[in-house]
Amino acid sequence: MIHEKWEPVLGTDHAPGIVCVGRVMAGGNRAGTGGQGTSGGRSGFVRLTELLTGIEPGQAPINLSVGEPHHPMPDFVGPVLSQHLKDFSRYPMTRGVEPFRVAVAGWLNRRYTLARPVDPEREVIVLSGSREGLFLAAIAARRYTADRGDNPAVLLPNPFYMAYFAGARAAGCEPIALPATRETNFLPDYDAVSDTLLARTVAVYLCSPANPQGAVLPRETLARIVKRAREAGAMIFADECYSEIWLGDDAPTGVLEVADGDFANILAFNSLSKRSSLPGLRCGFAAGDGDFLTAFMEFRNVAAPQVPVPIQEVAAVAYGDEAHVEDNRRLYRAKFDLAGRILGQRYRYHRPEGGFFLWLDVSELGGDETAARELWRTRGVRVVPGSYLGHTAPDGSNPGAGYVRAALVDDLASTEQALHRLAKHAD
Amino acid sequence: MIHEKWEPVLGTDHAPGIVCVGRVMAGGNRAGTGGQGTSGGRSGFVRLTELLTGIEPGQAPINLSVGEPHHPMPDFVGPVLSQHLKDFSRYPMTRGVEPFRVAVAGWLNRRYTLARPVDPEREVIVLSGSREGLFLAAIAARRYTADRGDNPAVLLPNPFYMAYFAGARAAGCEPIALPATRETNFLPDYDAVSDTLLARTVAVYLCSPANPQGAVLPRETLARIVKRAREAGAMIFADECYSEIWLGDDAPTGVLEVADGDFANILAFNSLSKRSSLPGLRCGFAAGDGDFLTAFMEFRNVAAPQVPVPIQEVAAVAYGDEAHVEDNRRLYRAKFDLAGRILGQRYRYHRPEGGFFLWLDVSELGGDETAARELWRTRGVRVVPGSYLGHTAPDGSNPGAGYVRAALVDDLASTEQALHRLAKHAD
Repeated sequence: MIHEKWEPVLGTDHAPGIVCVGRVMAGGNRAGTGGQGTSGGRSGFVRLTELLTGIEPGQAPINLSVGEPHHPMPDFVGPVLSQHLKDFSRYPMTRGVEPFRVAVAGWLNRRYTLARPVDPEREVIVLSGSREGLFLAAIAARRYTADRGDNPAVLLPNPFYMAYFAGARAAGCEPIALPATRETNFLPDYDAVSDTLLARTVAVYLCSPANPQGAVLPRETLARIVKRAREAGAMIFADECYSEIWLGDDAPTGVLEVADGDFANILAFNSLSKRSSLPGLRCGFAAGDGDFLTAFMEFRNVAAPQVPVPIQEVAAVAYGDEAHVEDNRRLYRAKFDLAGRILGQRYRYHRPEGGFFLWLDVSELGGDETAARELWRTRGVRVVPGSYLGHTAPDGSNPGAGYVRAALVDDLASTEQALHRLAKHAD
Repeated sequence: MIHEKWEPVLGTDHAPGIVCVGRVMAGGNRAGTGGQGTSGGRSGFVRLTELLTGIEPGQAPINLSVGEPHHPMPDFVGPVLSQHLKDFSRYPMTRGVEPFRVAVAGWLNRRYTLARPVDPEREVIVLSGSREGLFLAAIAARRYTADRGDNPAVLLPNPFYMAYFAGARAAGCEPIALPATRETNFLPDYDAVSDTLLARTVAVYLCSPANPQGAVLPRETLARIVKRAREAGAMIFADECYSEIWLGDDAPTGVLEVADGDFANILAFNSLSKRSSLPGLRCGFAAGDGDFLTAFMEFRNVAAPQVPVPIQEVAAVAYGDEAHVEDNRRLYRAKFDLAGRILGQRYRYHRPEGGFFLWLDVSELGGDETAARELWRTRGVRVVPGSYLGHTAPDGSNPGAGYVRAALVDDLASTEQALHRLAKHAD
């Protein structure tokens, strides 16, 4: 059995600083086994475990490495499940049951300022969480978009969520990672993407608020890349799973808001994992381009998971209720208030616009791996080296290298304790 | 936007009667949009709806077209869910929680005669139902298997379950459909598969008991194809989701039983949809080759759905209990007893060895589409034309063409009524 090595190469028609992260063969299926988008093609969590193996934590461990919300889940989960128990004996329609699709469309119409309402019949489908949807959408896009030539591309931010890279590879496309650094406000410089590149692009993955940096795409920037990408015939897949965890005054702009009432080529992905602190429910949606969704459903009907109907009924209630989401957001804000107070200017900290991660500059603490190891060894605090979440270019650069990621997903008290340890470590 | 047509072609190195069902381009992603394995690349259910549109049913409708079990679901579902409700707030490990994996391994060890027990740590993973697993396994196999040359193949029975074909296409492989006709006891003639074909085969999908025919692969036949396929370096994916619905004296042989204690290259797929009448739970497993599963998990970690922990806990209880499965099987047997009594020799009926479908020969009733239309028009009975479940070769042949499929998934009383209507129609 052969596991081919993943071999990074530099593309030819990219703007400066834009790096092709993997040579993908014609079949798109033999360029490695992991697809996690790290330079070794290996999971960041596996690498973190290896990094810390054999090192005793200096204090009682606090794990900030996993982005799993630990806020209380809404109290309607049990009652709604019980009410729909008998539906575990029905095959769920792949598209999703009507109450779910209506609830999602209603939420989108309330949450965003749309030129026209979303149609729950044609423009919403259920997903088993956003991961599988983001992955499978790339395969569907490769089939759906007009011919993109011999070297089709998929654009993703760097650092990035691993499903984007995995989707690009499975679709037989060249993943192009756009660096999101301090110099570009922790967002990719979409204006630097050339028309030549867009002409061969199958799909553009957007992530706003961004994981890990918490940056939010300004409306004008979002509108420009959406306009250019769809004029060029590419799909836009906007991962908006942090949309409800906003930490400033204004809710982040959604991709459907810059569509001018025409969702062609645009899909928004979201889930209840963050919004409702229900990561274990595994329920999300894709909404937007009705024609693409029709083709996507043909594919999903023979390939994708279905979501149990009782789970969809819980999700329908969750999309109809904002009170639990406001409680949730309030708790995240309180923790970022604490972070500002306790961290101050350490780690060049600034309050992110959204999400629940600290993205801490550790370049003066020996870089990401050293800092992560020392935080564990001396403080018992487990964080992720930023380079494990990004791609290393052939020149050795990795936009995550000078950072560690820390997830503020626990209660206020333990978060406060962790922040004090982080502050002390930087003094 | 371009939807390319799916263009059937004949392969070159196949045994007589073996048909390559689709030309797959190098990228494996542009040979059509449906992948349902019908000659038009369209869903059989969509085609059935079109076939019957505008035709009034002659009697109160009875739907035998969908293979959705309607037996009572086990009574532990609600209590177990309630007990594990808080786990909806945890991200599920992609591999599956230990109680689930231990329960599945325990069941496999009791149900089959294995040379050594299955290891729940390395040799079992959870799936969100078997469909997504069967599909994604092909992509993983393409990466995992040694180089299969420029024209890698995936073998599937004809008729077939759509996920096999979709997986083959997404993996960039040529789907090769092996006809399963009355002449070959409704099973593919695996001994007719050439060594040349096996040398380029990435994976062989087996289905026993077979959907739709209910035929069971004899132990010796199963052992021979497993031995040849793995010696040639191909993976064997055995879809055993009907394994517990056996209608004769002996339980069907499982693929792990012919492995001689070495599961290399072998995976068994199963789910609770049929075994426990829980199609809406969306929980199944893959078990076998630990090395392949490790690689599959790397891929699944960035691409696949996870299964909510409370659902896995229900599944763990389901795999530990045989009483509800025996009740379930008893009810299917009673319905096939009725079928034998009521249908007699009509439709060249014979009792299948497993599964819950009637596979009725309608060649003397005008063929499958005519028979399906007339059964609806005169009797109100909805069945699936067999050709919709199979592939039509360039010479026009389709092993499903002379048959209709009828699912015996309802209670005894309505099944009896349906059988009387079927019998009357053939008189």
